[in-house]
Amino acid sequence: MSVNPLSISLGFRKDKYSFVSFESTVFGIFCFYEFMDTKRPTIPAAEEILGGYFPVLDYGFVSLVDYMGSDEDVERAARVSYGFGTRKRSATRGLIRYLRRHRHTTPSEMVEFKFHCAMPMFIARQWIRHRTASVNEYSGRYSLMPLLFYKPELEQFALQSQANRQGRGEGAPRDVWMDAVDRWDRLRSDSSDTYRWLLEEDVTRELARIDLPLSTYTQWYWKIDLHNLLHFLSLRADAHAQWEIREYAGVIAGMMKRVAPLSYEAWVDYDLCGAAMSRGELDVVARLLEPRGDNGVEARPGGGLLDGTALAALGLSSREIQEFRDKLRPRDRLDFELDLTRMRSAESVAAEMERAVPVEE
Amino acid sequence: MSVNPLSISLGFRKDKYSFVSFESTVFGIFCFYEFMDTKRPTIPAAEEILGGYFPVLDYGFVSLVDYMGSDEDVERAARVSYGFGTRKRSATRGLIRYLRRHRHTTPSEMVEFKFHCAMPMFIARQWIRHRTASVNEYSGRYSLMPLLFYKPELEQFALQSQANRQGRGEGAPRDVWMDAVDRWDRLRSDSSDTYRWLLEEDVTRELARIDLPLSTYTQWYWKIDLHNLLHFLSLRADAHAQWEIREYAGVIAGMMKRVAPLSYEAWVDYDLCGAAMSRGELDVVARLLEPRGDNGVEARPGGGLLDGTALAALGLSSREIQEFRDKLRPRDRLDFELDLTRMRSAESVAAEMERAVPVEE
Amino acid sequence: MSVNPLSISLGFRKDKYSFVSFESTVFGIFCFYEFMDTKRPTIPAAEEILGGYFPVLDYGFVSLVDYMGSDEDVERAARVSYGFGTRKRSATRGLIRYLRRHRHTTPSEMVEFKFHCAMPMFIARQWIRHRTASVNEYSGRYSLMPLLFYKPELEQFALQSQANRQGRGEGAPRDVWMDAVDRWDRLRSDSSDTYRWLLEEDVTRELARIDLPLSTYTQWYWKIDLHNLLHFLSLRADAHAQWEIREYAGVIAGMMKRVAPLSYEAWVDYDLCGAAMSRGELDVVARLLEPRGDNGVEARPGGGLLDGTALAALGLSSREIQEFRDKLRPRDRLDFELDLTRMRSAESVAAEMERAVPVEE
Amino acid sequence: MSVNPLSISLGFRKDKYSFVSFESTVFGIFCFYEFMDTKRPTIPAAEEILGGYFPVLDYGFVSLVDYMGSDEDVERAARVSYGFGTRKRSATRGLIRYLRRHRHTTPSEMVEFKFHCAMPMFIARQWIRHRTASVNEYSGRYSLMPLLFYKPELEQFALQSQANRQGRGEGAPRDVWMDAVDRWDRLRSDSSDTYRWLLEEDVTRELARIDLPLSTYTQWYWKIDLHNLLHFLSLRADAHAQWEIREYAGVIAGMMKRVAPLSYEAWVDYDLCGAAMSRGELDVVARLLEPRGDNGVEARPGGGLLDGTALAALGLSSREIQEFRDKLRPRDRLDFELDLTRMRSAESVAAEMERAVPVEE
Repeated sequence: MSVNPLSISLGFRKDKYSFVSFESTVFGIFCFYEFMDTKRPTIPAAEEILGGYFPVLDYGFVSLVDYMGSDEDVERAARVSYGFGTRKRSATRGLIRYLRRHRHTTPSEMVEFKFHCAMPMFIARQWIRHRTASVNEYSGRYSLMPLLFYKPELEQFALQSQANRQGRGEGAPRDVWMDAVDRWDRLRSDSSDTYRWLLEEDVTRELARIDLPLSTYTQWYWKIDLHNLLHFLSLRADAHAQWEIREYAGVIAGMMKRVAPLSYEAWVDYDLCGAAMSRGELDVVARLLEPRGDNGVEARPGGGLLDGTALAALGLSSREIQEFRDKLRPRDRLDFELDLTRMRSAESVAAEMERAVPVEE
Repeated sequence: MSVNPLSISLGFRKDKYSFVSFESTVFGIFCFYEFMDTKRPTIPAAEEILGGYFPVLDYGFVSLVDYMGSDEDVERAARVSYGFGTRKRSATRGLIRYLRRHRHTTPSEMVEFKFHCAMPMFIARQWIRHRTASVNEYSGRYSLMPLLFYKPELEQFALQSQANRQGRGEGAPRDVWMDAVDRWDRLRSDSSDTYRWLLEEDVTRELARIDLPLSTYTQWYWKIDLHNLLHFLSLRADAHAQWEIREYAGVIAGMMKRVAPLSYEAWVDYDLCGAAMSRGELDVVARLLEPRGDNGVEARPGGGLLDGTALAALGLSSREIQEFRDKLRPRDRLDFELDLTRMRSAESVAAEMERAVPVEE
Repeated sequence: MSVNPLSISLGFRKDKYSFVSFESTVFGIFCFYEFMDTKRPTIPAAEEILGGYFPVLDYGFVSLVDYMGSDEDVERAARVSYGFGTRKRSATRGLIRYLRRHRHTTPSEMVEFKFHCAMPMFIARQWIRHRTASVNEYSGRYSLMPLLFYKPELEQFALQSQANRQGRGEGAPRDVWMDAVDRWDRLRSDSSDTYRWLLEEDVTRELARIDLPLSTYTQWYWKIDLHNLLHFLSLRADAHAQWEIREYAGVIAGMMKRVAPLSYEAWVDYDLCGAAMSRGELDVVARLLEPRGDNGVEARPGGGLLDGTALAALGLSSREIQEFRDKLRPRDRLDFELDLTRMRSAESVAAEMERAVPVEE
Repeated sequence: MSVNPLSISLGFRKDKYSFVSFESTVFGIFCFYEFMDTKRPTIPAAEEILGGYFPVLDYGFVSLVDYMGSDEDVERAARVSYGFGTRKRSATRGLIRYLRRHRHTTPSEMVEFKFHCAMPMFIARQWIRHRTASVNEYSGRYSLMPLLFYKPELEQFALQSQANRQGRGEGAPRDVWMDAVDRWDRLRSDSSDTYRWLLEEDVTRELARIDLPLSTYTQWYWKIDLHNLLHFLSLRADAHAQWEIREYAGVIAGMMKRVAPLSYEAWVDYDLCGAAMSRGELDVVARLLEPRGDNGVEARPGGGLLDGTALAALGLSSREIQEFRDKLRPRDRLDFELDLTRMRSAESVAAEMERAVPVEE
């Protein structure tokens, strides 16, 4: 087999192209940094992780490679548009919370993030549906695919949910998982063999890769503004999202928190841990609660109980009634905090990936 | 003055170009319809108003000129993605409500609307901020502007709100309005004179128009999908929007209701008349209410009152406390129904506009 | 194995959910049509193919399921914006060609298309990169995947191009292809077995599907406006695109031609078969050619030859020189015409797909 | 009159709100910078102008307030996607030129710019049509409008073009311009009086501003990526754009050149100073020119002249023939270079604007 081990990003075959050095190859995808002076808004907590690689799943990662702006840029943009009151430094938080509460989202478009991410293709296919972002993905037409595959852990290996037509239910038996691991190992080994064989036969890469499984890792640069990132996170950090993409959302949320901590906090309070109430649900609440005094709220005296019939009369379907009741359960405040001890260097991640590229014997 | 009265849409000057007939000119902007057979999804309630012009403000209008799809196309797109259960005709409503309640918005992108609208430029400037739409606007660089200006009625002539840094407060005195009308009339007359004089001097139109006031009417074709239209309506039918654009939103909502009545109903129930609750607000509700039995809700026995101090302890600012208390007030179910008696023909609207174009003596 | 054969679109398991009839299932994804009256612009050549399924590759298809507007709607939108001259019916073609030649693309956003398409996932991943479109894709989280896989024909089974780091070069040997077919058959059979086995073990579908190969067919509804469709076609009907997606582009171009034939013709002449010339290339042309008389062009007398050195002096790199020389080769006028004899009914395509869903024994 | 002179950005009235200091007000819109360390890609030539204000027209300006990435980030993104060859520092230019020549535009989305701009409203209305950008505009609903109006100079005061239905022709007579200046002065004075009077009467700002002329200056923050910025510049630096917006495009192009000089150069060579050729035009060129030797081009011997009849036979309309002949004329290489001597401080621009806000007597 005749593929240069140092050529992941470029996909060169040593017998066909001149030798490429390790440095130049890795430079092509991974970023290395040096300190410079800038007048641009700069956030020390973000600088601390810039260019560091945080593992996700078995071979995936997310790295924050660049950012533009912070909470104060959201504020400044809002003040141009809305002219909100006197600016006191202590007022930044209040303004940012007000904006988010009232869905004034355009100022948060003024902050931008750039990430380098690697994920299995079935996750990439969910992720890419977020259209208001810029993406440059590793191309299997040009480059050799690193043969890395996602293998679910037992903890994640669940039965189909009975309650919910898409999600996961309780865990599957351990022996089923062990059988599954065997099957996955065999399929991936066979699929890798075929990929390597087709490359050796010099078959065009764009066809050689068509039987790689959806569990194969791909990678991309992903650039998105804060407004659209929060929308992504609201959907992908949600309990209805597939567990694997939620793992990515959690790491990205931790990075976002470092760039724009007040926006992060407002998003947690108003979006992630909030909920929409329908006209009917508001009617229910208004039947049972009322303002009291200047700034209090109390249960409406004597208005104690609405049973299923009463709720249906207010327009709630039986499914909506259960959804409303779920909203009455106390909810934890979620938080996403990066574990800095897991941060890896670009060099080490790049080297791991290079070793997975089909190599010459 | 040497401008052809029949040339609004084209902006021709009779002495420079060959004569254009009334028909060909109007055809350029206004649409005329004849019945044809189609296999496409067709909605009788929409066909009834297709190409009719509904007045808004003094010289504005909205006309539905084309549509693609309906509630059933939202449903079909959802079934491709989500594979929701057996399809029974009676289930369309439930599915559409489920999608909207859970913010599954992509299926509603499958329905499209095209409108012909005329509005004052200060409204056009708000409207155009909705970027996910297609627009072709009448151009003052190419064409002569019809000299039509928006004049607020006394009912709308309000003082600056004290509560709200942007909105309207109570009505201004009648004599102030009468003075304002005099000033507006004079300014518009002077501005029109200058516009006409510059055209007579053959000054380039792109400069002749620069001192027309923001109250001047412009017009455009506007094409948008149902998802983005509902977002537009949620913002522009809202009490915080400027009254004039709310008038447009109301007419457009009435048209949307005819094309996709189930989507309309779900939007009213879950968006327009619903509200977002923050983590803190949900905590308040959960302190005071609890599920009861299988499908009931009741005020938590003995958990009666949360005063301002208690609410602050749950993380609500004083502004958020007032916003929460507002959500407890019973709210009307808004509805938007077109008044078909106001529908005008394309011919009559086109003729009115043509009379307002600078004409030759 | 316990999966209902009639449930592709819904992914029901008979033992878990009530029986779904053939009709209701197919209705969920495929469209059936009846004739109705409409006042909307209606194009007989488009109606003729509406809802018909055109095969692409071995198991893929494209169907035009809805459209809004036509060439005349492009024209009308342009006239609002640009006020172009007197409208004569014979002038529609000239205006549409003018708009395309001068990249006035907003009027072409006024025409909309909706397609139902099935394609292998490695093609879906290229296709989805076109962000200004609406998509609802079949979901492997909710639904059972039909086990259909793309198998390249010998004619398409090529070696990696040596000239071009991404494309295909000459054909691979027949025996390599035969070996590849054997390997593909085995991989797909093993992968299908694992998928079926995981479903039988009731493992969550979102994990059961992760080792299906990229050659597995998926499907979606795809809605896009004419401007963005032409951009898609320019990239995907191009010789640099992967052959498989070009097959889709060709069928879609044939459908577009039926809805908006003048826009199609202008796109072929100005985009597909045209080329951009750089400042340097225009300098070369201007050195060698000059206007002659009122409306002629001639080779500049005596200015006969520019060799490589002269071209480099005008700023062309050696790669650009070859690209320029390629532009001097006569090019065929491409055309895309649907073969109506290949059009299939929704019923027959739906039935084929259903047979490919994992079935109960 | 009771408006605080220090309150432009916030629009406070002194009698209604507490005093706001100059610093806090200006902070709301204008940016002030200090140097910090960053690991992000940093471009000294961009840092040099960061936060400086460049005048455009009489009271307009453009300021580069932030940027993310540079040419090397375009390159890195391309290498992820396309895996282009060995990376040598000297190869950056070649790659960037290749990408632009072949319309591989997604890598250029990886660079982002943020500008603070002030322009007359009739220019703002053209500018805002570029939808793939983020904007926060000064709001006349919340804030007091600075009473600054654009007054065209004699040099720009032109007659309507006879050749071109939209552009400017030869200059208008000086006395017409002098009369126009008188009329503009009067209209703006009257309009300002009415605006101030309505504010004094405490009429809501959203109505007080409706008779301000289209020549009134507004301002916004504008954030856009390099790909979309180049598209904006291609349209707005073009000779068909209104002269006033071309002035803005020129300054912005000069700023872009400092952030991404290789992308700038490629854009000038391949877009701004290049041209599209249709199938028919390429046929004409191919009839008259042919490749010669390995890397030369020559006029086809004896194939000297194509007259109007011959060109028409190749499918060119008479308008296209003239457009083709225009492409044979030698064209200047345009360049956009900032004049650093014109750069002003944020403080001085902010102060000028504040003086134009309606003030208390």
